[in-house]
Amino acid sequence: MNASTSKYLSSLDEYRQLLDRYDTWLFDCDGVLWRGSTLVDGAKEFLQLLRSKNKNVIFVTNNASNSRATYKIKFDKLGIEAHVDEIFGSAYAAAVYLSSVVKLPKDKKVFVIGQTGLEEELRNEGVPFTGGTDTKDSTLEAFDPTSYEPDPTIGAVLCGFDGKINYTKLCKAFIHLNTNPSCLFLATNTDATYPDEGGRLCLGAGSISAPLRYALGREPLVLGKPSQIMMDCIKAKHKFDPKRTIMVGDRLNTDIQFGSEGGISTLLVLTGVTQVADLAPEAPPPAIPEYIANSIGDLIV
Amino acid sequence: MNASTSKYLSSLDEYRQLLDRYDTWLFDCDGVLWRGSTLVDGAKEFLQLLRSKNKNVIFVTNNASNSRATYKIKFDKLGIEAHVDEIFGSAYAAAVYLSSVVKLPKDKKVFVIGQTGLEEELRNEGVPFTGGTDTKDSTLEAFDPTSYEPDPTIGAVLCGFDGKINYTKLCKAFIHLNTNPSCLFLATNTDATYPDEGGRLCLGAGSISAPLRYALGREPLVLGKPSQIMMDCIKAKHKFDPKRTIMVGDRLNTDIQFGSEGGISTLLVLTGVTQVADLAPEAPPPAIPEYIANSIGDLIV
Repeated sequence: MNASTSKYLSSLDEYRQLLDRYDTWLFDCDGVLWRGSTLVDGAKEFLQLLRSKNKNVIFVTNNASNSRATYKIKFDKLGIEAHVDEIFGSAYAAAVYLSSVVKLPKDKKVFVIGQTGLEEELRNEGVPFTGGTDTKDSTLEAFDPTSYEPDPTIGAVLCGFDGKINYTKLCKAFIHLNTNPSCLFLATNTDATYPDEGGRLCLGAGSISAPLRYALGREPLVLGKPSQIMMDCIKAKHKFDPKRTIMVGDRLNTDIQFGSEGGISTLLVLTGVTQVADLAPEAPPPAIPEYIANSIGDLIV
Repeated sequence: MNASTSKYLSSLDEYRQLLDRYDTWLFDCDGVLWRGSTLVDGAKEFLQLLRSKNKNVIFVTNNASNSRATYKIKFDKLGIEAHVDEIFGSAYAAAVYLSSVVKLPKDKKVFVIGQTGLEEELRNEGVPFTGGTDTKDSTLEAFDPTSYEPDPTIGAVLCGFDGKINYTKLCKAFIHLNTNPSCLFLATNTDATYPDEGGRLCLGAGSISAPLRYALGREPLVLGKPSQIMMDCIKAKHKFDPKRTIMVGDRLNTDIQFGSEGGISTLLVLTGVTQVADLAPEAPPPAIPEYIANSIGDLIV
């Protein structure tokens, strides 16, 4: 990142100008509002400030484990005001994409690798699915591919985060995709890792779909940030002027790229995965933020 | 592949010359001697012919699920003469590499993702290990990374094929590799798929390690073909003149590359994954065989 192309905000005047310049604020959550189950200092107060000034607040997360309804519970627990229609997750984006863009024929369904949150969103959007948390696939018994008859009504494989991933689910998904050229390959997100409560990195949804991508030799259509399918989902529910809208995030290759490609402004905060040292990388960064600030807690003016 | 650089064998005279030219014959198994549990026509008779002419016969497989002793049972069932010291598998190569090349300090052990065959080979070579088929990791219960204390005595992660792969094993392996820069990352082989009994492709060992490779952003040291570590294992047990030795296989990027890089002759047979159509690819092939024949069954003269 070339420091001359990003504006590093550090004075009250600069914070005030930023607040005045944007009416709609899109926030990534983990690494911006909280880390694990701990609030970032001042995050709650900054969001209250935005609401007191009648700003639109939207939360955009790649977390595919939770439906929006379940994700709202996390906001409630942390004492942050949030409404379900302000929350956009990659599970929701996947469900909307399947119901409204792909419009799978009535006799087709989706084979899911994922958890209940992803299933909830599919159900809410009326997308028929199989797999997922189905107990018959939740096994460590040997999978016998010879006796597996792929269901010809499966028109798509959707892979999200699945903490109960196993060989049976992966092999079934692979067989559907490998034997049926018209079967769509979708992923909620391709984040390789996520930080646990203590900040230790664990395998994320992108690692769950890695066996499929490797064996198929091709990439899925990704619904989460930086995919603009997520932006289209937001635009379908909220009107905003791109010139007066800003995306706040901690990751260059998801949040900042998402905002840049969506034609809105971007603010990188340093409370998550991106550190100052990453701002002068040897390789070109995936996206350059318009602004940089240490934390949204600093923006309380 | 440029047809002018590979000699396509089709006459009895050519077969006879090939037989005379080579004293030591290395064979890949699946796709060469058999497919699933069905013998390739004439495979048994050709091997008998080689033995009747006092040729050395060696079997080199990337199959990491079986120890050599268990793999011999497959030969026995199919009625093919084979001796344990003629069989080289990627599990064996991994064990030999760890015991004889790396020489892990006495207080270090290997974290294994794999099955009993891999464990057997490690035990035979006196390599201490943990993980593998340990029932405490064989669970689909949620893995809590926060409460996981990585064992500092783990000096290497070795990943083979594991039909009971789960999030717990993958996450533990990832945490060892990601938090300990001196922890070695090894894989028995990186075959993305393997054909089941009916010829349908399923996920192979390379797909099992794909989440680790994706999340770490780096490749493991691979022990199976085309790695020359496998060739070193063979050379340690068998004396042969490279000029009078030939590798017979069905895969360009494992078998043929293995032979070419090892300085021995190579024969591609078309009874496995490589078909005639693959012989004029758009991209340069990973290796060019010296000879091509339809099947080892044709070589009976």
